[in-house]
Amino acid sequence: MSEKRKLLRVLDGETIFPPPTWLMRQAGRYLPEYRATRKTAKDFLSLCYNPELAVEVTMQPIRRFGFDAAIMFSDILVIPDALNRNVHFVTGEGPKMDPINPAGIDALKTDNFLNHLTPVLETLKRLRIELPNETTLLGFCGAPWTVATYMIAGHGTPDQAPARLFAYEHEQAFNKLLDILADMSAQYLIAQIDAGADAVQIFDSWAGVLGEKEFEKYAVRPVKRIIDQVRAARPDAKIIAFAKGAGILLQNYRSQVGSDAIGLDWTVPVTFAKELQKQGAVQGNLDPMLMVAGGEALDKGVDRIMAELSDGPLIFNLGHGITPQADPENVTRLLKRIRGYQRG
Amino acid sequence: MSEKRKLLRVLDGETIFPPPTWLMRQAGRYLPEYRATRKTAKDFLSLCYNPELAVEVTMQPIRRFGFDAAIMFSDILVIPDALNRNVHFVTGEGPKMDPINPAGIDALKTDNFLNHLTPVLETLKRLRIELPNETTLLGFCGAPWTVATYMIAGHGTPDQAPARLFAYEHEQAFNKLLDILADMSAQYLIAQIDAGADAVQIFDSWAGVLGEKEFEKYAVRPVKRIIDQVRAARPDAKIIAFAKGAGILLQNYRSQVGSDAIGLDWTVPVTFAKELQKQGAVQGNLDPMLMVAGGEALDKGVDRIMAELSDGPLIFNLGHGITPQADPENVTRLLKRIRGYQRG
Repeated sequence: MSEKRKLLRVLDGETIFPPPTWLMRQAGRYLPEYRATRKTAKDFLSLCYNPELAVEVTMQPIRRFGFDAAIMFSDILVIPDALNRNVHFVTGEGPKMDPINPAGIDALKTDNFLNHLTPVLETLKRLRIELPNETTLLGFCGAPWTVATYMIAGHGTPDQAPARLFAYEHEQAFNKLLDILADMSAQYLIAQIDAGADAVQIFDSWAGVLGEKEFEKYAVRPVKRIIDQVRAARPDAKIIAFAKGAGILLQNYRSQVGSDAIGLDWTVPVTFAKELQKQGAVQGNLDPMLMVAGGEALDKGVDRIMAELSDGPLIFNLGHGITPQADPENVTRLLKRIRGYQRG
Repeated sequence: MSEKRKLLRVLDGETIFPPPTWLMRQAGRYLPEYRATRKTAKDFLSLCYNPELAVEVTMQPIRRFGFDAAIMFSDILVIPDALNRNVHFVTGEGPKMDPINPAGIDALKTDNFLNHLTPVLETLKRLRIELPNETTLLGFCGAPWTVATYMIAGHGTPDQAPARLFAYEHEQAFNKLLDILADMSAQYLIAQIDAGADAVQIFDSWAGVLGEKEFEKYAVRPVKRIIDQVRAARPDAKIIAFAKGAGILLQNYRSQVGSDAIGLDWTVPVTFAKELQKQGAVQGNLDPMLMVAGGEALDKGVDRIMAELSDGPLIFNLGHGITPQADPENVTRLLKRIRGYQRG
């Protein structure tokens, strides 16, 4: 590799202008070519576990838009699936699995874990060969809290009330579950790095419903546990931690968990984002609805982030995943606008 | 009245120990007597519009627990209902109404608005007679942004994506809708005060999904518009503003909107809450899941708030509504614990 990939230089704290850009869920339903490939798989998880198809859908947005990073096509719920929790995706209803109870936590079997995830690792190996040399390859996993919210409820929930309640009622069992998830996630991320991932992102999509003490116990501690284990095994690992909705609790999150960059959702005020950027790289944080709306509203949203954050280490991204309703033309517009900027 | 009601003294900035306490949705499905009364009404809105039944369910938690405040039994969606948007509640599915578009906003009829809400005002009049003299009577309305999220989608939505998108795509029409809602809400709150409400609360339950600029435009501006109009008509009006999930944007919210107190959801860190309390009264912010969990977890949650916030103007409350799964025994436990405190 002639030069270090741009996104990795930002993770080292360098300011790159214009900022490297990718979008969460950039391989997804808003793309007609994704929808076509998706139809050839039996169901969503079969797509995740088929290296040929997973490579294809990961490459689609790279070919079409030339993003600076590709994120392996997979799902945060492959972890409970690899723990035999019978995960399946019902079209129009989202993910379902067997809800877990304290006895189920005691009985969790981790023997077959990495073996079950071999196809995902194979996808990464193939991607590193297929991708342009300058494109950063990202692996990922869900954070233990977020994954646990699904395992406890058996499905997605508003406000993640079942997991919050479970944590109050069965704190010891809950901590045990988070520890198992953290340890398995660390193994998984190490294997992703060994398979070719340049950097990995930990998605704590539901961190925003936690109170202050619970955030420390259930969001910070398990993510730190993952990162400590990954760094112990692979000291050069590059890690982005994304605690969606954490707001003011992001203040010390980066140093608490030990990540290289932190992701920012679209509700993080730009003045606060600027403060967080003084500690290191930030990633975000355009409202995904602007990829549906387009037009001047999109331009203004891009300009606001560029004006405030592009003079520091920034990975341009959305504040959450791009939605199925998004217009691919708006992605073209977004990239043109970001890349058309002249350093002020 | 021999002495000013406790909650109103807190709204004036006074510290009362132990703090006056009520719970959002304290009249609700967790109470068997509520469920019994609810069955006698045709549907949920019929209960809201029947003064006899609405008084009964409002009084139930006062009789059972002796809360320091009663909040009139109603719903934030009576406003779109009074604007002829055909609101109905489908059991197990939540509220439904005709989704509004820009033409529908232009055609909104406000002539019959207050007339439609006469039963709610009658409920307040009767409550002021029924309630113990020391109990504060609260009125309320939904904030324009939150009400608009339902009017645009036609139902509740995760992340309120339809309204966020509508605001980007039809900003002018959206601002018009918010202005109409603000003006009608102001009239409604003034009528509530005239009917006997000691104070009113404005619920911006979905403020947390707004980015910084959108929060200013769609959460701050319309709520300030309501409060300015209410204060112009009734200079002594006492107002609590609750922007759920607003996080760091609460920093200046009280002075921006001009409320006497601000409500805090359960994710607001106690150190930040303490800072906000220096500006005036705060209300909150126990995790409602603790009313399901009970036990030591509940006690610890109460203790944390009491330790940090009870030496300033505090209204003890949950950080969001009590849920149907809550155990009434836990409410007894909560009140006993709060009221058993000795000033340290």
